[in-house]
Amino acid sequence: MNSHDLKTIESLESSVRSYVRSFPTVFTKARGYRMWDENGKEYIDFFSGAGALNYGHNEPNMKKKLVEYILDDGITHSLDMASTAKAEFLRRFKEVILEPRNLDYKIMFPGPTGTNTVEAALKIARKVTGRTDVISFTNGFHGMTIGSLSVTGNSMKRQGAGVPLQYSPTMPYDDFVGSEDDTLDYLRRFLEDNGSGVSIPAAMIIETVQGEGGLNAARFEWIKKLSDICKEWGIMLIIDDVQAGVGRAGTFFSFEKAGIEPDVVCLSKSIGGYGLPLALTLIKPEHDKWIPGEHNGTFRGNNHAFVTATEALSYWEDPKFEQSIQKKSDRITAFLDEMIEKYPQIKGHRKGRAFMQGISSDVEGLSEKVAAEAFNHGLIMETAGGHDQVFKLFPPINIDEDGLEQGLELIEKSIQSAIKAMNLESDTVTQ
Amino acid sequence: MNSHDLKTIESLESSVRSYVRSFPTVFTKARGYRMWDENGKEYIDFFSGAGALNYGHNEPNMKKKLVEYILDDGITHSLDMASTAKAEFLRRFKEVILEPRNLDYKIMFPGPTGTNTVEAALKIARKVTGRTDVISFTNGFHGMTIGSLSVTGNSMKRQGAGVPLQYSPTMPYDDFVGSEDDTLDYLRRFLEDNGSGVSIPAAMIIETVQGEGGLNAARFEWIKKLSDICKEWGIMLIIDDVQAGVGRAGTFFSFEKAGIEPDVVCLSKSIGGYGLPLALTLIKPEHDKWIPGEHNGTFRGNNHAFVTATEALSYWEDPKFEQSIQKKSDRITAFLDEMIEKYPQIKGHRKGRAFMQGISSDVEGLSEKVAAEAFNHGLIMETAGGHDQVFKLFPPINIDEDGLEQGLELIEKSIQSAIKAMNLESDTVTQ
Amino acid sequence: MNSHDLKTIESLESSVRSYVRSFPTVFTKARGYRMWDENGKEYIDFFSGAGALNYGHNEPNMKKKLVEYILDDGITHSLDMASTAKAEFLRRFKEVILEPRNLDYKIMFPGPTGTNTVEAALKIARKVTGRTDVISFTNGFHGMTIGSLSVTGNSMKRQGAGVPLQYSPTMPYDDFVGSEDDTLDYLRRFLEDNGSGVSIPAAMIIETVQGEGGLNAARFEWIKKLSDICKEWGIMLIIDDVQAGVGRAGTFFSFEKAGIEPDVVCLSKSIGGYGLPLALTLIKPEHDKWIPGEHNGTFRGNNHAFVTATEALSYWEDPKFEQSIQKKSDRITAFLDEMIEKYPQIKGHRKGRAFMQGISSDVEGLSEKVAAEAFNHGLIMETAGGHDQVFKLFPPINIDEDGLEQGLELIEKSIQSAIKAMNLESDTVTQ
Amino acid sequence: MNSHDLKTIESLESSVRSYVRSFPTVFTKARGYRMWDENGKEYIDFFSGAGALNYGHNEPNMKKKLVEYILDDGITHSLDMASTAKAEFLRRFKEVILEPRNLDYKIMFPGPTGTNTVEAALKIARKVTGRTDVISFTNGFHGMTIGSLSVTGNSMKRQGAGVPLQYSPTMPYDDFVGSEDDTLDYLRRFLEDNGSGVSIPAAMIIETVQGEGGLNAARFEWIKKLSDICKEWGIMLIIDDVQAGVGRAGTFFSFEKAGIEPDVVCLSKSIGGYGLPLALTLIKPEHDKWIPGEHNGTFRGNNHAFVTATEALSYWEDPKFEQSIQKKSDRITAFLDEMIEKYPQIKGHRKGRAFMQGISSDVEGLSEKVAAEAFNHGLIMETAGGHDQVFKLFPPINIDEDGLEQGLELIEKSIQSAIKAMNLESDTVTQ
Repeated sequence: MNSHDLKTIESLESSVRSYVRSFPTVFTKARGYRMWDENGKEYIDFFSGAGALNYGHNEPNMKKKLVEYILDDGITHSLDMASTAKAEFLRRFKEVILEPRNLDYKIMFPGPTGTNTVEAALKIARKVTGRTDVISFTNGFHGMTIGSLSVTGNSMKRQGAGVPLQYSPTMPYDDFVGSEDDTLDYLRRFLEDNGSGVSIPAAMIIETVQGEGGLNAARFEWIKKLSDICKEWGIMLIIDDVQAGVGRAGTFFSFEKAGIEPDVVCLSKSIGGYGLPLALTLIKPEHDKWIPGEHNGTFRGNNHAFVTATEALSYWEDPKFEQSIQKKSDRITAFLDEMIEKYPQIKGHRKGRAFMQGISSDVEGLSEKVAAEAFNHGLIMETAGGHDQVFKLFPPINIDEDGLEQGLELIEKSIQSAIKAMNLESDTVTQ
Repeated sequence: MNSHDLKTIESLESSVRSYVRSFPTVFTKARGYRMWDENGKEYIDFFSGAGALNYGHNEPNMKKKLVEYILDDGITHSLDMASTAKAEFLRRFKEVILEPRNLDYKIMFPGPTGTNTVEAALKIARKVTGRTDVISFTNGFHGMTIGSLSVTGNSMKRQGAGVPLQYSPTMPYDDFVGSEDDTLDYLRRFLEDNGSGVSIPAAMIIETVQGEGGLNAARFEWIKKLSDICKEWGIMLIIDDVQAGVGRAGTFFSFEKAGIEPDVVCLSKSIGGYGLPLALTLIKPEHDKWIPGEHNGTFRGNNHAFVTATEALSYWEDPKFEQSIQKKSDRITAFLDEMIEKYPQIKGHRKGRAFMQGISSDVEGLSEKVAAEAFNHGLIMETAGGHDQVFKLFPPINIDEDGLEQGLELIEKSIQSAIKAMNLESDTVTQ
Repeated sequence: MNSHDLKTIESLESSVRSYVRSFPTVFTKARGYRMWDENGKEYIDFFSGAGALNYGHNEPNMKKKLVEYILDDGITHSLDMASTAKAEFLRRFKEVILEPRNLDYKIMFPGPTGTNTVEAALKIARKVTGRTDVISFTNGFHGMTIGSLSVTGNSMKRQGAGVPLQYSPTMPYDDFVGSEDDTLDYLRRFLEDNGSGVSIPAAMIIETVQGEGGLNAARFEWIKKLSDICKEWGIMLIIDDVQAGVGRAGTFFSFEKAGIEPDVVCLSKSIGGYGLPLALTLIKPEHDKWIPGEHNGTFRGNNHAFVTATEALSYWEDPKFEQSIQKKSDRITAFLDEMIEKYPQIKGHRKGRAFMQGISSDVEGLSEKVAAEAFNHGLIMETAGGHDQVFKLFPPINIDEDGLEQGLELIEKSIQSAIKAMNLESDTVTQ
Repeated sequence: MNSHDLKTIESLESSVRSYVRSFPTVFTKARGYRMWDENGKEYIDFFSGAGALNYGHNEPNMKKKLVEYILDDGITHSLDMASTAKAEFLRRFKEVILEPRNLDYKIMFPGPTGTNTVEAALKIARKVTGRTDVISFTNGFHGMTIGSLSVTGNSMKRQGAGVPLQYSPTMPYDDFVGSEDDTLDYLRRFLEDNGSGVSIPAAMIIETVQGEGGLNAARFEWIKKLSDICKEWGIMLIIDDVQAGVGRAGTFFSFEKAGIEPDVVCLSKSIGGYGLPLALTLIKPEHDKWIPGEHNGTFRGNNHAFVTATEALSYWEDPKFEQSIQKKSDRITAFLDEMIEKYPQIKGHRKGRAFMQGISSDVEGLSEKVAAEAFNHGLIMETAGGHDQVFKLFPPINIDEDGLEQGLELIEKSIQSAIKAMNLESDTVTQ
């Protein structure tokens, strides 16, 4: 075993590094849902780059296109100058994604990261409305730069800002207070009462399924109602689909089944297809009020990512792809329900939707233990939630059934190992 | 001519797009200092991706390494998990860059853009000192997200925020007020007087040469004095070397000749070598107080960029490389001085340093005209400064002498064309 | 009639003036619950200087003491130097108010206005806890300077700031969302969930009865529960008793029946007794962490007000005084209930507590009309609430029964006049 | 000696109390420039309530009018309803003050303290211009509430806020950086350069002589130039005349000799004449854009203060009054120059203007010692400046020559005592 590389990283990289601590090995190769470390050990990837690898690693068609482009000296970096690769992506995105869904958006390339598309979305909402506040929701996660962080809920991340974060009242997400209260009643009261201390905001920003926040999935009718409230008050609705988009929540856009048309949609992570940095901000044409260059960035035209992103869109041409996601999602749901029933001592609750599901355990430390055991068993899986109380299943959405079953099997083994390690074997222990 | 792609971009991309307006053609291929558009027209690139392509386009050695890596299914996206590509980069960066310069930094990968490394730098400075304010300097440019924008001077960019930008008093850059005043006297008075309204800040952030701000180069002795002031008051010094670093200002780090050791250094743009998104935040070991995951991001481990970045470091192993930059810099300086003398009607002043030099013209609109004429003559060149009063020469730093001379020749032609177009031929007109 | 003075005021005073518009006459004299204008017309005062004249106008005992003090050249203005008048007040406040209630507070004189005591309270809470946020409640009113305004709910007042108001998340007051929801469930969830976006605040600031906000009275058990939450989370509880204190809500401090001991109590308005500017900030001894002079102000030692304030405390020596307030409060309650029943077309709901009660009418404009008619009938009365939907009865708390009945009689007449003027005579109209 | 009252204050009043620590005795009576403590000891008052007692204590004419008003049951508290006392004041203020100076202002009563008039001024400037920032100047002092504090320079006071203070870039006051630099060159550069990071502000707020900040007097030509800059850029100019106004700086308004017409003028302290709380905000008619009630406050109509304020204006009817101020000012100047020359070991520099002059000593602790010795010798005098380096002479402006000479004599004695106590007798010691 060669621990040399790991030691290099430990000694030279900043203490801010995190995943390398949960998955302490050095990865070298990857293909589809599989990764290999420097010792040749194979892992099944149920993490998918936190949603950046929805098509798996090094997808062969994209790989082919990318290598051809590079060999051909296709322009790599072009800021926001026009390139053939960019034009082709725009055309395909319109044809394959927007038009079939009857959506009409101007496409902005705001810099190739999730936080950048969120910052751009906040700016355009403030510019269009002339207002400053943006309502965010409990347990939302939108990024690490000061604008995005101000609409992010997590207290550890917020404290990292080192300055007070402002212009963003937080409202309760669906089911935040308890199942009897409709949290939108609360929101509505704050908007309608001119003494509430909450002014009409420029926008609301929300994830339809909160990935980092603990796999909380808002009901579609709640989202629809939220959209109606926004319309009623002239508030722009920003859907942050950075993690839940590009099929992760079951449809290309996570909000499709809610029957809404957001004013702004943020995409990043898997939009590049191959794991290459790319981000999009979709803006309704009537809101595209930018002055040229008002928001810019060096890497907003990442042509390698355009090439792979364009190829990735091919998946969505055939409706069977979405159907297969649904079918596999059902399998994941059934599996998780089975686990909860079969292992009552983990005190589990199923969370999330489609390819972003998991189990929230009321047993402190259990979910982290399951994820750690999974790594030992050769499966990469992350936890989520304010207390890491959720272990989450993020397989590639194009995983084959065989791969999915292998992964689920390893998860059950990991649950068993965790139960054993935490002495939860008998029901009576678990209180 | 195929204007189809350009029309696609005009109809689908947001109005925020900018460079495509100055350079209205569709680029397809690029190599070294040359680019080709869809019609096969060749351009000499004196823009270099605004400093992201210091080694030119598609540098052959990096290209080879990158293709091999991809063909070999090297892991592409790994968040901040360990990968062989990352470890190799860290090792080489230490050996080739840090150690020979007697520098010791922890390396943070903050997300692959310039604004992200600046946001990370601001956070760590605030965390380490427990203070909120960060002093920035007039005409500084540090990025488009709210944290970075708050330390950026440009009023149009600032207004784009849509919210007040805070925690950052602005101090005058070298030579801001007039050559008689030492602007550091002013700064010092604000720090030493407890009634000045300016509290001791967490940090100061500065570019040694302001690229976007108009190619203002601070004198090395001024930078040294600034560093001494920071030390005296326990203020962290952040050098934003996103644009001036990686050789652009003549040495790997732009501040080497000032004889300082900044507490934090921000790198991005050309650090990836090939134009692929990558950013580094270098933090003195005693300041590396991050909690794991306190700042994160999906694309902070861009392995493709690690591969090319590692290869790019080879340039710096041979001291002759830096010498060649110096020699070509002198040629640029001489050329610009010659232009100013030969064409007095452009009322030019030479600005900047090394491979980020240009001419500031007192004739309104002249610099923009020169850049526009350059495009017509087949050379890509940008303007800078609050009123676009500077046309700037950003050739690749590894350009050969032949390429450099071709470019300079086109620039002289462009100056001549601009003079003609603006009717500045005779001296008497220019008043 | 001499309208000269009114014209002077209209032509010279700023357009910000307000009450003079509702009560367009020039007042000259006042005694007890009666006021006279320049034409000799008499008014019954059910406004009491918005709670600053709880003992009525020019109370004879205070008047005597004040005149003696002035004639004797007693020191008038002494900043915060020691004066006999101040010492005497402090002693009496301790003996008559604090000790009998088993309360222990350090007394701060923060400048003689309500907003000043609130600003001081916010500062000390932030200093003691080292945190920035202060939770305020919907429809709270705490003052017009930027600190106080940031914890005030009213949107018109907030917009007057001209800058974003910060560091104060708003939480729902008792009964804000609807009678089924316990609003403290929301508050508790926001505190306990580390992803809620609401950090643990320095303090919560609240009025037990919201005077300006529409005479909303929080239930005592709700206030007690709020106090418990504050204790549980180490949050300071600030009771703003500027309006509800000094007997207005039935007891000297409005919170006495809730069985709590706030960390900070804000007093102003009637604490001076005679309508002279004075304010107090009561701070639990363990929280009195001020540096000398850290908060100051020119008029914080208003000796005239100390003289009258000391005399005013005599009222509270005899328990019968509080009993009389209670008795008269019951009379007001009964009267308002009678009005609501007798005149169903006003669609009234009784609001408030003790000497700060009123009727909220669902008929738009009705309450304003009642107040306007009252003025015509010779009674001064104000409206409250975000839409002026409440007319409120604020008689002096030492009013005699005769005066009270005269006032109530005029109010019934005013209701009748308003009904007539608005054509609400028959039930069927009122729909 | 009765130390009972002092002990009461020490045990019951908050630790924030300050002047009582410098002047540890209990005052009982006062008349003109003389005060007496509880032991009958007499003091000459060269402090004048920090500028709130420009006419001395308990001025007999005002006293007479006030007692008559009270005995007559004149209305005391009337919020902002019309009263005869208010109308009379407005009329006289116009006749005696505004008209003879060719000034035209709407008069606002913003609550009876200095900080309140400043907060009102900031609000109206922001409202009128629609901008947020207000430029303040180094060592300015404007009040203790969050709005006023944000434009105040002193770091100890600012830290007391407990929250970051915003929307107010600080610019250098006259002579801040050094006598060679014209600080307005800096200011002008920041305004004219669109990359300076300082946006065009709503207003600038400035004291013509900085009382708390160390008796810095701006040159009249500097003030005029500042006013011109404001006009050029459409920036509102707010003169904070709370301390320097009402004759303290030699003329009724401190800015008269600069030949400017500020957009807003803040008055408080001595405007009430008798030391009773009162404040005015003077607003040019074209800027009086307030909505009724947009800024309010309980004590904005302090009729007792209107009565004394009106009487106080009589002083200004006779031009001899201003001449007498000038004459006595010259005497103070001559005296201070004499002291500096006679006692070189105090290393003194004369500061200030007219009745707000003093000596700044380069000997650490000297000025505090002089003030302490003055108290022992029976004279009340304050220090100022960030390090209390200035002892300042603030006698009443209507002091007779006899009183002035007595005071000056005591000051010389105090200087001698301080020199002795600090062993500065011989020149050689003072190094």
